[in-house]
Amino acid sequence: MELTTIRELYKNRDSYMDQKVTIGGWVRSIRGSKAFGFIVVNDGTFFEPLQVVYHDKMDNFAEISKLNVGAAVIVTGTLVATPQAKQPFEIQADTVEVEGASAPDYPLQKKRHSFEYLRTIAHLRPRTNTFQAVFRVRSLTAYAIHKFFQERGFVYVHTPLITGSDCEGAGEMFQVTTMDLNNVPKNEDGSVDYSKDFFGKETSLTVSGQLNGETYAQAFRNIYTFGPTFRAENSNTTRHAAEFWMIEPEMAFADLDDNMFVAEAMLKYVINYVLENAPEEMNFFNSFVDKGLLERLHNVVSSDFARVTYTEAVELLEKHNDKFEYKVTWGTDLQTEHERYLTEEVFKRPVFVTDYPKEIKAFYMKLNDDGKTVAAVDCLVPGIGEIIGGSQREDDYNKLKSRMDELGLKEEDYKFYMDLRKYGSTRHAGFGLGFERCVMYLTGMGNIRDVIPFPRTVNNCEL
Amino acid sequence: MELTTIRELYKNRDSYMDQKVTIGGWVRSIRGSKAFGFIVVNDGTFFEPLQVVYHDKMDNFAEISKLNVGAAVIVTGTLVATPQAKQPFEIQADTVEVEGASAPDYPLQKKRHSFEYLRTIAHLRPRTNTFQAVFRVRSLTAYAIHKFFQERGFVYVHTPLITGSDCEGAGEMFQVTTMDLNNVPKNEDGSVDYSKDFFGKETSLTVSGQLNGETYAQAFRNIYTFGPTFRAENSNTTRHAAEFWMIEPEMAFADLDDNMFVAEAMLKYVINYVLENAPEEMNFFNSFVDKGLLERLHNVVSSDFARVTYTEAVELLEKHNDKFEYKVTWGTDLQTEHERYLTEEVFKRPVFVTDYPKEIKAFYMKLNDDGKTVAAVDCLVPGIGEIIGGSQREDDYNKLKSRMDELGLKEEDYKFYMDLRKYGSTRHAGFGLGFERCVMYLTGMGNIRDVIPFPRTVNNCEL
Repeated sequence: MELTTIRELYKNRDSYMDQKVTIGGWVRSIRGSKAFGFIVVNDGTFFEPLQVVYHDKMDNFAEISKLNVGAAVIVTGTLVATPQAKQPFEIQADTVEVEGASAPDYPLQKKRHSFEYLRTIAHLRPRTNTFQAVFRVRSLTAYAIHKFFQERGFVYVHTPLITGSDCEGAGEMFQVTTMDLNNVPKNEDGSVDYSKDFFGKETSLTVSGQLNGETYAQAFRNIYTFGPTFRAENSNTTRHAAEFWMIEPEMAFADLDDNMFVAEAMLKYVINYVLENAPEEMNFFNSFVDKGLLERLHNVVSSDFARVTYTEAVELLEKHNDKFEYKVTWGTDLQTEHERYLTEEVFKRPVFVTDYPKEIKAFYMKLNDDGKTVAAVDCLVPGIGEIIGGSQREDDYNKLKSRMDELGLKEEDYKFYMDLRKYGSTRHAGFGLGFERCVMYLTGMGNIRDVIPFPRTVNNCEL
Repeated sequence: MELTTIRELYKNRDSYMDQKVTIGGWVRSIRGSKAFGFIVVNDGTFFEPLQVVYHDKMDNFAEISKLNVGAAVIVTGTLVATPQAKQPFEIQADTVEVEGASAPDYPLQKKRHSFEYLRTIAHLRPRTNTFQAVFRVRSLTAYAIHKFFQERGFVYVHTPLITGSDCEGAGEMFQVTTMDLNNVPKNEDGSVDYSKDFFGKETSLTVSGQLNGETYAQAFRNIYTFGPTFRAENSNTTRHAAEFWMIEPEMAFADLDDNMFVAEAMLKYVINYVLENAPEEMNFFNSFVDKGLLERLHNVVSSDFARVTYTEAVELLEKHNDKFEYKVTWGTDLQTEHERYLTEEVFKRPVFVTDYPKEIKAFYMKLNDDGKTVAAVDCLVPGIGEIIGGSQREDDYNKLKSRMDELGLKEEDYKFYMDLRKYGSTRHAGFGLGFERCVMYLTGMGNIRDVIPFPRTVNNCEL
């Protein structure tokens, strides 16, 4: 259908002014009198709606007057400037065709609904202002991330979702099976006979694409993943979902400095892209969701991120232990309260914390010369705490092997990973960005359930 | 690290000629004499490698001479033109640092390996010419798809992977669970007690994001999904994988014509993008994988796609039934042999086949006025057959309800989907593009296992 979008009318208003246009969209509100009325229409292409004036010369005036919120209409008329009104222009309609009526029990009325209620109608909530804004920004953020990496020659790799290695922390993983749970095939000793399963072995949903990603970095030098990951954690918080998306770049011939350079450039790029491409949405968030949002984001874009080692950070924080629920001591992991204190109070800008004790970080992180810390880095940002976690990877076969031995990890489970250290190993580094956490950061939304179209959490898998 | 990429050297050769440069990459081959030698280095950023000349004035000449294929090196030297040689330039090295040696049992030697063998070392195969080319094209194809839709204002929607509705064809789905399969919780009647599972109900991996996608199209007008989908089909063919990626655009205020318009524009856009951004890779495929590839793709880009109804297509095909293994009659689905005959022999260009019998298509497709066919469309392309399948959706509540009743589908399982027809329904349409099939089409690769980094198929879930 040849319809002009409301976005197009706003962006190129001069070429449409006093011209005939046809738009299609959904009724946000309607009020009428005996002779004429006003419909506010949103067509989903632009945050701002458009007012349509209809009148009793129309054949279907009675039908229009009875329209309910949510109805779909196709409007043809003249775009006219309205200098005296809040909105810049409106359509003086010639015709209003009803594409689809909206039943009287339409759950979204003009009044404000709570986020909790809207979660129960996930299929309708993108029709509200807040969720129009959230999910347009989510889309733009995803694209900005692809654009950033592609423009820099990174190769996008689809790492697998179903994985046969349960070495990533089995307790938190979802199992994938085609076996009949009413009648699970068993071996003679009573254990599950996984040879009868689809893959002939036990399989789960991935918690990270990093190890697979590293294999491609050792071929393409710079790669990134962007795909779903899964955690079967039984935690019902505002920051955890069972299914979420993650971005994991990995770079060969790169060290921890390179890692921080790319992470900082990426965050700034994504923020700028969203500010430029969704100004109406960002103003809305700043006004109605999180008052300090725009100031905070502009500050991040224009700051050089600070850098501090974990050891230095602990010294800084220990002086303020009276302020913290969890007291800081060297060797313990930083809590969100500590992270936020560092970035909001001490540095007042984003900060990279590096070189954590090896005991609190993953086995694949590169051991520093001190023998105690590893070349890890977390990026902390005001308002949220940790947004990125990464590291330089251990590229020395023997050091990696001995760390795995210490932790009781079996070499045969990681043969492909060890091969990377055997055949043309390079210093290399990478990081992970939780996509939903990034969208929360950009929008000021406080609950991860409100930035995922159809969120999956404990006891919740609707639609 | 400050390294110049081989891509950069090829793209801006003039500014680097006779200058000092430093590159990092992996040894593809090495041959030496007592006084000097040649290393061919690939750094993963560009399809073509770079020749490096080293010599016995280097302190580590002995170490270099012993390097094996696959070793990682950092080379500093002068870029010099080689007008007499096959390659346009080489590096006369000052230093060759060994970043990581390659053990003598490196599985990739200079000789050509079979695709079958390379599948057994999925972590190393992207280091070969063919798979460098495949996975760079895969990355560019993914980006081209995002770019196409984002430039046209489509909103990218992440539809959920884990789904609680098994109404999409339960037999082919993977089940997702956190229950202990050694000891599945049971109800008193002996059935599985899914209230004990993570989501409190039976859940599976999605086979399509379409129904969820439609809910967002009714809010944003134009949306697309791009994410993994899963099929637990026990079919061991060159075209089926258990885990693959799919693109599903969905458009409100759009009919079957709009659907075809967007599908044709998208395919042409993606082909052009890959031809422009990976000319070396595409020439390689054309020379070594599929001789007619470039001619075929150029033909697609410059053709208007043909359009024919299913009924017309069947009439055309019935005349040639002697050529087919499966005979064509009205009412049966078209097989690949028929699809290819239509696009390759009859039309000699891509063709949209529309208006299929309702019995062989999905319940949600819009019933045509004849009461027998639905507004479905398949796009067939030379060399492959069906690459896209789509339809206008049934937007009439009552017609959809009666079709569901005919098929025994329960309304309560589709409440959210029916709501879209109750509250502001619009004519709308969409299609699905299998991403891997698209990459196979663009590269000429014949086996889906060779276009997925870590493929998952029956009895195969390695790495």
